[in-house]
Amino acid sequence: MFESAELGHKIDKETFKREVPKLRAELLDVQYDVLQKREFPVVILISGVDGSGKGETINLLYSWMDPRHISTLAFSAPSDEERSRPYMWRYWRALPAKGKIGIFAGSWYSQPIADRISGDMRRSELDERLDDINRFEAMLVNEGALVLKFWFHLSKDGQKQRLKALEKNPNTAWRVTKESYERLKTYGRLQEVAGHVLRVTNTAHAPWIIVEGTDDEYRSLTVGRIVLDAMKRRLNQEGRQLVPVAPPIVHPIDEKNVLSELNLTRALGKKEYESELARYQSRLSELVRDGRFAGKRSLVVVFEGPDAAGKGGSIRRIAGAMDARQYQIVPIAAPTEEERDQPYLWRFWRHLPRTGRVAIFDRSWYGRVLVERVEGFCAESDWLRAYAEINDFEHQLVEAGAVVVKFWLHISADEQLRRFKERQETEFKRFKITEEDWRNREKWDAYVSAVCDMVDRTSTGLAPWTLVEANDKNYARVKVLRTLCERLEAAIEDDGKISEK
Amino acid sequence: MFESAELGHKIDKETFKREVPKLRAELLDVQYDVLQKREFPVVILISGVDGSGKGETINLLYSWMDPRHISTLAFSAPSDEERSRPYMWRYWRALPAKGKIGIFAGSWYSQPIADRISGDMRRSELDERLDDINRFEAMLVNEGALVLKFWFHLSKDGQKQRLKALEKNPNTAWRVTKESYERLKTYGRLQEVAGHVLRVTNTAHAPWIIVEGTDDEYRSLTVGRIVLDAMKRRLNQEGRQLVPVAPPIVHPIDEKNVLSELNLTRALGKKEYESELARYQSRLSELVRDGRFAGKRSLVVVFEGPDAAGKGGSIRRIAGAMDARQYQIVPIAAPTEEERDQPYLWRFWRHLPRTGRVAIFDRSWYGRVLVERVEGFCAESDWLRAYAEINDFEHQLVEAGAVVVKFWLHISADEQLRRFKERQETEFKRFKITEEDWRNREKWDAYVSAVCDMVDRTSTGLAPWTLVEANDKNYARVKVLRTLCERLEAAIEDDGKISEK
Repeated sequence: MFESAELGHKIDKETFKREVPKLRAELLDVQYDVLQKREFPVVILISGVDGSGKGETINLLYSWMDPRHISTLAFSAPSDEERSRPYMWRYWRALPAKGKIGIFAGSWYSQPIADRISGDMRRSELDERLDDINRFEAMLVNEGALVLKFWFHLSKDGQKQRLKALEKNPNTAWRVTKESYERLKTYGRLQEVAGHVLRVTNTAHAPWIIVEGTDDEYRSLTVGRIVLDAMKRRLNQEGRQLVPVAPPIVHPIDEKNVLSELNLTRALGKKEYESELARYQSRLSELVRDGRFAGKRSLVVVFEGPDAAGKGGSIRRIAGAMDARQYQIVPIAAPTEEERDQPYLWRFWRHLPRTGRVAIFDRSWYGRVLVERVEGFCAESDWLRAYAEINDFEHQLVEAGAVVVKFWLHISADEQLRRFKERQETEFKRFKITEEDWRNREKWDAYVSAVCDMVDRTSTGLAPWTLVEANDKNYARVKVLRTLCERLEAAIEDDGKISEK
Repeated sequence: MFESAELGHKIDKETFKREVPKLRAELLDVQYDVLQKREFPVVILISGVDGSGKGETINLLYSWMDPRHISTLAFSAPSDEERSRPYMWRYWRALPAKGKIGIFAGSWYSQPIADRISGDMRRSELDERLDDINRFEAMLVNEGALVLKFWFHLSKDGQKQRLKALEKNPNTAWRVTKESYERLKTYGRLQEVAGHVLRVTNTAHAPWIIVEGTDDEYRSLTVGRIVLDAMKRRLNQEGRQLVPVAPPIVHPIDEKNVLSELNLTRALGKKEYESELARYQSRLSELVRDGRFAGKRSLVVVFEGPDAAGKGGSIRRIAGAMDARQYQIVPIAAPTEEERDQPYLWRFWRHLPRTGRVAIFDRSWYGRVLVERVEGFCAESDWLRAYAEINDFEHQLVEAGAVVVKFWLHISADEQLRRFKERQETEFKRFKITEEDWRNREKWDAYVSAVCDMVDRTSTGLAPWTLVEANDKNYARVKVLRTLCERLEAAIEDDGKISEK
């Protein structure tokens, strides 16, 4: 969920200074268009980690637009008036009217997140509240509102550094209190709770937009651009808003993304590879025969990656560690006729392993948000809702005891070209390369965007993505096996503990 | 929720015999169209009270259509295979393909309802499950499926009588077991649980269709017609199904409805009226001053009804029992400019009473599904989603301690005409009658349908509708006051008990 907001996004002050005047002028223009049209309100939620620049961003938005038509709403402890009515009353009171912009500093999410961290709210209570919130936001969107939910993220180090920086500057030192450092201690818990909350409320009509909070210029420019684009798109929509208008991809303005930041030079020498491979294969072999696995767990492994990334080779190394009766490899190609007559997840449901078994998917349900999206095989509204549906699906798997491990094997475009050429030259590998593979290469950038978006929206605490640097096959295979072993061990150990409810 | 399925709906065997051949021919035709178009599957859930004719209806549907393209799926205890996978796996396996019809006898609702009744499932677990179900059904509809959810209802007496009738007939006696009578004992609990489940899962994309199960002919013909209409409508839709295709109004084929069955001749003599009025006014006066009310409850009263039904008079009788500082009367007319710039529920949120206070709404949020629907002031999709939004809203009120009492004051068309004429003749009442009132009269039938639909979909266990026979003003006023007193007393007494969670 937060992977792409831990890359150290940054833009220099020069670029910022150059870009801001244009952005301001456009924002003002669009704000007046929204005001004049008076067809929909703009609801902006600014949430996130402490010290991630929420206040600064709100102040900037104020200074960039006409503040007479913006209301900012901060919520602390509910008033006496508010406590004696349904808890959503305070937010209903504060809704911006059509044509206006309402910025919610702290929102309907703040209280449940805080209460859950402090332990004052049970998980089931939290989930009921999130349900209410989803219905409330669906209602807002159905009534025409443009809802933009920002979550500002900082890595734990990033948060510490930001506090130090604020302290150093005499103008901001007052903002750092003892509580700020207290909150640092609950960082892990916040990430866990926020991860859950964001997953459950990441709906197609009001998706979360996660922005790295470390660099002021990057954060502000990113938010400004997204608000601008979203208002423009909404203005151009005929009638009601039926699909989310927030750009599904937050194309990072500094060009950094989870794939570009991978170190693809990682490699493993032959000798080290062989010993590591043997080591993890035997570990894996033990783990899947462990009674604690066989009795209540299953394993679902997903492989995605560009053509020629080495999925098949990795899968064979996993299979080599297991008894053939225990696992099934499910290669996913175009759906069969029978499968096309069913909802798109149906063909994956039918291959789910039972307890004690392993299913390895060579390509998977992520086709919906990768190839189907990039090639236009399904409507935008279909792949937009797929993120939530996939998260739901994997959540059900995990609830039923499955360990879900998802690999994106990544290679550079150059490495892919080298492998394609090699395949063409090697007689027995020639069947592996087709015209289509060459065509897909032309859409490399579109695929990169789709992958980044996929990782942002579907890498959850329950079923995280593992990005594998795969230019070197040895390194990739060992990382895959090691990750599998670690995830299985963690799950088996978890079962030993009392599960929190 | 079940009001309109307790009216003793019935059609005679002659009509049935006359109607069935046409229906069968049409059903077959449409079934083949669906099959040929192969664009969407039809998912029919048959659920409901024991002995309400689920099996018979399924058999009829089979005999009326081509059984080669229908699959019927009954689910009992999950198999070993099923238990070792996510619980929704068994239903995914059973989904009908595009072009086919799948009839689910027992469905994803059966287990949670049974587990909740037996106490094996906590309320919060049930709600999480219902959430999963809502997301699953939304996915089905988004993928194109036509989802028809039938609930067959019997009153408690009706259920007993049906069991007796089955026992008498030697062909059906075997179907009555000891368990059938056992289940009769949990009738109340089933109604409670089913009421909750149906309320929460009564979504705009897959609404429940409640059918009275007592009379075989009525039930079968009703289901057959609804299935036919829904398939026809779905076939005519361009592209994906975005709005529910089940007819929102199940227009009863025997012309009986909750309003037609009211006994409008009920009346109260002057003397009795005065003593009853005094009695309940003083009782109400005590109740709202009771510390148990003032400390944690509020009261929200809703009045709806045709023009000249006597809403104002009833409201004055309530107000007369209270201190003016404690209550607020909120007359609802066309929304103000400020209100039009907000979601439609906003103008009601702003008038919510705080703890210890009373708000009386003279017309209400139900305008959305009454006047706005009938006059076309909002889109069909808007009023269709309003039922769930209104139930949500009232649920939030109740959760916050409000007692929500809703009155539909009903008069006959003749009585309305008499009152209109009287008003025109009486100088000081003339302001009460306008051109619009006369226009509304012309839409009497459309309003009746809207009211019946409203009662079916929004009369919930937490906030039931009270239909008041109001041709006689005395009778109506006393019934209103008595109902208020009873609901308030029940709420206060409930607070004394430990609330079940």
